[in-house]
Amino acid sequence: MDEERLAYVALACLLEPGNRLLGDLVLRGGPQEALRHILTGREPEVLRGAVAARLGGWHPLRLAEAAAGHADRLGARLVTPLDDEWPTQLGDLVRISRPDARREERDTYPPLCLWVRGPLPLASALARSVAVVGSRAATSYGESVAAELSYGLADRGWTVVSGGAYGIDAAAHRGALAGGGATVAVLACGIDRPYPPSNTNLFDRIGDDGLLVTEWPPSAAPHKHRFLIRNRVIAAATRGTVVVEASARSGSRQTLRRAYELGRRPMVVPGPVTSAMSVGTHEALREDGVRLVARVEHILEEVGAVGADLAAPVRGPQLPHDRLDAAEAQVYDALPLRRAAAVEEIAAAAGLSLREALRCLSLLESQGFAVRRSGGYSLPPPPKPCTAAGAAPITGTAAVAISGVPHGQIPPQEPG
Amino acid sequence: MDEERLAYVALACLLEPGNRLLGDLVLRGGPQEALRHILTGREPEVLRGAVAARLGGWHPLRLAEAAAGHADRLGARLVTPLDDEWPTQLGDLVRISRPDARREERDTYPPLCLWVRGPLPLASALARSVAVVGSRAATSYGESVAAELSYGLADRGWTVVSGGAYGIDAAAHRGALAGGGATVAVLACGIDRPYPPSNTNLFDRIGDDGLLVTEWPPSAAPHKHRFLIRNRVIAAATRGTVVVEASARSGSRQTLRRAYELGRRPMVVPGPVTSAMSVGTHEALREDGVRLVARVEHILEEVGAVGADLAAPVRGPQLPHDRLDAAEAQVYDALPLRRAAAVEEIAAAAGLSLREALRCLSLLESQGFAVRRSGGYSLPPPPKPCTAAGAAPITGTAAVAISGVPHGQIPPQEPG
Repeated sequence: MDEERLAYVALACLLEPGNRLLGDLVLRGGPQEALRHILTGREPEVLRGAVAARLGGWHPLRLAEAAAGHADRLGARLVTPLDDEWPTQLGDLVRISRPDARREERDTYPPLCLWVRGPLPLASALARSVAVVGSRAATSYGESVAAELSYGLADRGWTVVSGGAYGIDAAAHRGALAGGGATVAVLACGIDRPYPPSNTNLFDRIGDDGLLVTEWPPSAAPHKHRFLIRNRVIAAATRGTVVVEASARSGSRQTLRRAYELGRRPMVVPGPVTSAMSVGTHEALREDGVRLVARVEHILEEVGAVGADLAAPVRGPQLPHDRLDAAEAQVYDALPLRRAAAVEEIAAAAGLSLREALRCLSLLESQGFAVRRSGGYSLPPPPKPCTAAGAAPITGTAAVAISGVPHGQIPPQEPG
Repeated sequence: MDEERLAYVALACLLEPGNRLLGDLVLRGGPQEALRHILTGREPEVLRGAVAARLGGWHPLRLAEAAAGHADRLGARLVTPLDDEWPTQLGDLVRISRPDARREERDTYPPLCLWVRGPLPLASALARSVAVVGSRAATSYGESVAAELSYGLADRGWTVVSGGAYGIDAAAHRGALAGGGATVAVLACGIDRPYPPSNTNLFDRIGDDGLLVTEWPPSAAPHKHRFLIRNRVIAAATRGTVVVEASARSGSRQTLRRAYELGRRPMVVPGPVTSAMSVGTHEALREDGVRLVARVEHILEEVGAVGADLAAPVRGPQLPHDRLDAAEAQVYDALPLRRAAAVEEIAAAAGLSLREALRCLSLLESQGFAVRRSGGYSLPPPPKPCTAAGAAPITGTAAVAISGVPHGQIPPQEPG
């Protein structure tokens, strides 16, 4: 391994990821120069002291070689910005760092090295990817929606990225695997101890068919603050983030905001307003730029090619009745149920002139919506129930009437 | 009753409401002049013929007098634009009429007369009002949310307006009555035959404590097309419309669009994406200008005074842990569960310099988040379970630890 690559690995082992000071050093002079700066004390104590605390007596490049050997024994590989499979979109993370903000808003810089386990090339697995994340304390509603959406995404060739946690994350990975697609778990700890341990079987399946990815070296523990740091990678690696269920305190809101700031698509699945697990999602949906998604087509509309993949709005089925114009519908509504009504009576009830009422009645009759009887017009009789013996094929106007036209025994239909 | 008022009543009896041709005539010359124009044939056949069909042999003003007497016998009153209790905001309806569109987009003009039953003055009942409407085929989720929101609105002095239908509408009226507030049912038929008949008890209660309102003369049937015409009054009378549950085919979407065009607030309550009764609401929430509301404070934020009534976003409870800064939280997360760790080990795990780790440890110790033991630091011991006998009052740092700080036996907390 060349020394530049080793320097990336060493820095990733020696400092917590996302560090802005370190990231700026690397951007200015590359990883070797950054390492030299820190070790020779030309950089602030905050970096030098932290590096010293982890380095013990080691030489940093020997430490990196040892880390590479360790990864190898764990069945993992090291991926740095020098490698072909590096997902270059992570570079956008420098754009959302706020120099004067508190740590989680400031230290958003890209990873310097990723530990990766699994059969897929990382960059191409993430090229068409969507994050599906949410609450660990998910409800069965949330888990089934996350699994369903992820299944649909996988089925359409999209990679589902999540965090491997209980609840929504696990349901998303499982749905993607069930859909026969790629799934990537971005961890907040060492590749040798994916958290939570109860998802071990799931992690094994992801390692076999998808990818386990982390920016922490082996044996790093899943400290609480690391999850918030990790979330920026999920936001940046994907074309959009879908949050399914989030309580009021959820970190998912932060992931959505980062996705938005990175120019990715922030998306949220709503739920019952009576559920504590939807309080965070609904608050997010009240913010600008966040899009409600209820089915996989909605997600594809956001992350797919511009102008393609537009989700058709859901409309109910068209009934024959829907094709009547306003006057015809008024006359139809004014037809009595059981008796015949004179044209004059129908015109008055519909609020139309006699001439207009006659035009409509003649059209309605020709289409089977009205019948002429002695003394005027009425609705057509209800269709006779079909019996097994002697049911004749239904054709012509009767078929229209049966296939959707309400008849005399149905109360008036109010649209909504 | 003076002749101008009688002319309004006559026109309301003789033509279906909302008519743009008629409305323009009234705007130009007043109701008497409009009536004269129509009767003398100076206006298009479409108006003259329709009026003739309803007039029979009557003189229009005698017909209006008879209608007034009829209303009186039904316990109702006639309210025209000449009356003090006329809700003048209905005048905005002329703004959303589209001359060349199909009837429901064109004939959006204001009512010319309202039949009203109930003890409240109409204009003041509607001055601070919100519409709560939705599907007739509501789920129990939808009905309980509609009732809950309407209760909250009533409780805060807002009038709840709805359409008196099965399902969401009925739940909204009931919730408002339970909240001790005013509720107004805007009907799509004669005041003597509120529809549906199964809501008769509810209509009686609304007539006693709230208001039943309609723009159709007595005995008018609840024809299907009349509900869409009626919906414009609900949108215009209120400061905003809240839709709870709507199927893909729902007319509620149209009410929302009209509310938006009228400068009222269009609001939607989300639901489970697995429910057919939320398909229409979610499609609406994907449109611009429609606001998600999940609790009554959200509604008040939309319709209340500008700058007042802002709903506080829901945030989870602050835990003592939340007040730690980033470095302190990293050190806290790095404390081992059962044994003591040396400062060097803690610094390396946290990714901080020795000096910074010491600063943090000393602060954590002083606040009860860490304890010093031989060989280093650890998390404080878990609190002993309190027993009924001999439970001592807990004070000082132990109280902090118990009141929210996770201790050694709790797995790491992942935020979302």
